[in-house]
Amino acid sequence: MSTPIDFYFDFSSPYGYIASQLIDALAARHARSVNWHAIVLDANFQSLERIKIPSSMMRSDYVLRDAERLAAYYGVAYKTPSSLGVNTEQAARVFHAIHDRNPKLGCQFANLVLKAYFIEDRNIAAVEELQSIAAELGIEAEEFQDAISAPASRARVKAEVDMAEARGVFGSPFFIVEGERFWGNDRLPQLERWLESGPY
Amino acid sequence: MSTPIDFYFDFSSPYGYIASQLIDALAARHARSVNWHAIVLDANFQSLERIKIPSSMMRSDYVLRDAERLAAYYGVAYKTPSSLGVNTEQAARVFHAIHDRNPKLGCQFANLVLKAYFIEDRNIAAVEELQSIAAELGIEAEEFQDAISAPASRARVKAEVDMAEARGVFGSPFFIVEGERFWGNDRLPQLERWLESGPY
Repeated sequence: MSTPIDFYFDFSSPYGYIASQLIDALAARHARSVNWHAIVLDANFQSLERIKIPSSMMRSDYVLRDAERLAAYYGVAYKTPSSLGVNTEQAARVFHAIHDRNPKLGCQFANLVLKAYFIEDRNIAAVEELQSIAAELGIEAEEFQDAISAPASRARVKAEVDMAEARGVFGSPFFIVEGERFWGNDRLPQLERWLESGPY
Repeated sequence: MSTPIDFYFDFSSPYGYIASQLIDALAARHARSVNWHAIVLDANFQSLERIKIPSSMMRSDYVLRDAERLAAYYGVAYKTPSSLGVNTEQAARVFHAIHDRNPKLGCQFANLVLKAYFIEDRNIAAVEELQSIAAELGIEAEEFQDAISAPASRARVKAEVDMAEARGVFGSPFFIVEGERFWGNDRLPQLERWLESGPY
């Protein structure tokens, strides 16, 4: 089996959401699996190359329109959230707690959170919303509370972010395969060529 | 005849160079013409939405590798210039002087300058290099000197940059068609869909 594709995303990134709707099918076409990694691209994120995408850009008219157009281009349901750029630390904690135990269930949780934010305009920074989504998947209240607040859960997300920083991640979505970095949905055709015919 | 595509580029932008090799053919497929606009995306450039692409990003290992990979992806000859990010004010002055008089000749000049920089690793901030390229196209020394230093030529570039700022341009390459903005080579498929089937 070939190495999996590492897929990094932030729950509040429109482009990360769009990628989440595309990457599994792309990988499957080339008999690859995908490892989903939720990260938190907030002000504390320190990329290896000191690359910082200005937050003014992510909230610009250009990007708002571009995300809508990109979703339409790919046929992905999308509505600009009324509160773009919410804190995603807690969503990431719950994701990793579930995903570490059961990757498939973790991805289901991620998909429901992304759908809640980017289709239903729910506030995924609110603990009640996350809990309601977790409950839909049969996650018990106790496991959920641990995921939200246990020190180990915080440390888990911090380690994930540290690892992303060390690997040169600086945006969402971000893909790494065989050490090669691809940033953005717009690099998916290049990633696909890599999978088809190797390094170029 | 449908409205032309406005194509903005900076002579020192690898992505702008790659776009220059693609845009005319794309436009021709849809019976559109292309208006080439050389701009100078230096520290003085003030985008409408205050979007500033960090120069650290343009010189990062990621972008250097990405530009090489993108060129390979499109089959465009490309060699990272040894002096990436040179000043392109003078190249833009000469371009506009020629292009205003003869658009086709202006584009030929642009292509030779881009080739000099991105294939032959010549320093396109040097007046001698620009003059040698202009001479290849039969531009007389007097016309060249005017283009380099006449107040009208400086004002011409400034007006072009002001117009780009006012239209919401903030990077290279940048395309505008029917008021819709597309930033980057990676938006060419979306631009093409727009030309095929209208707004979406």
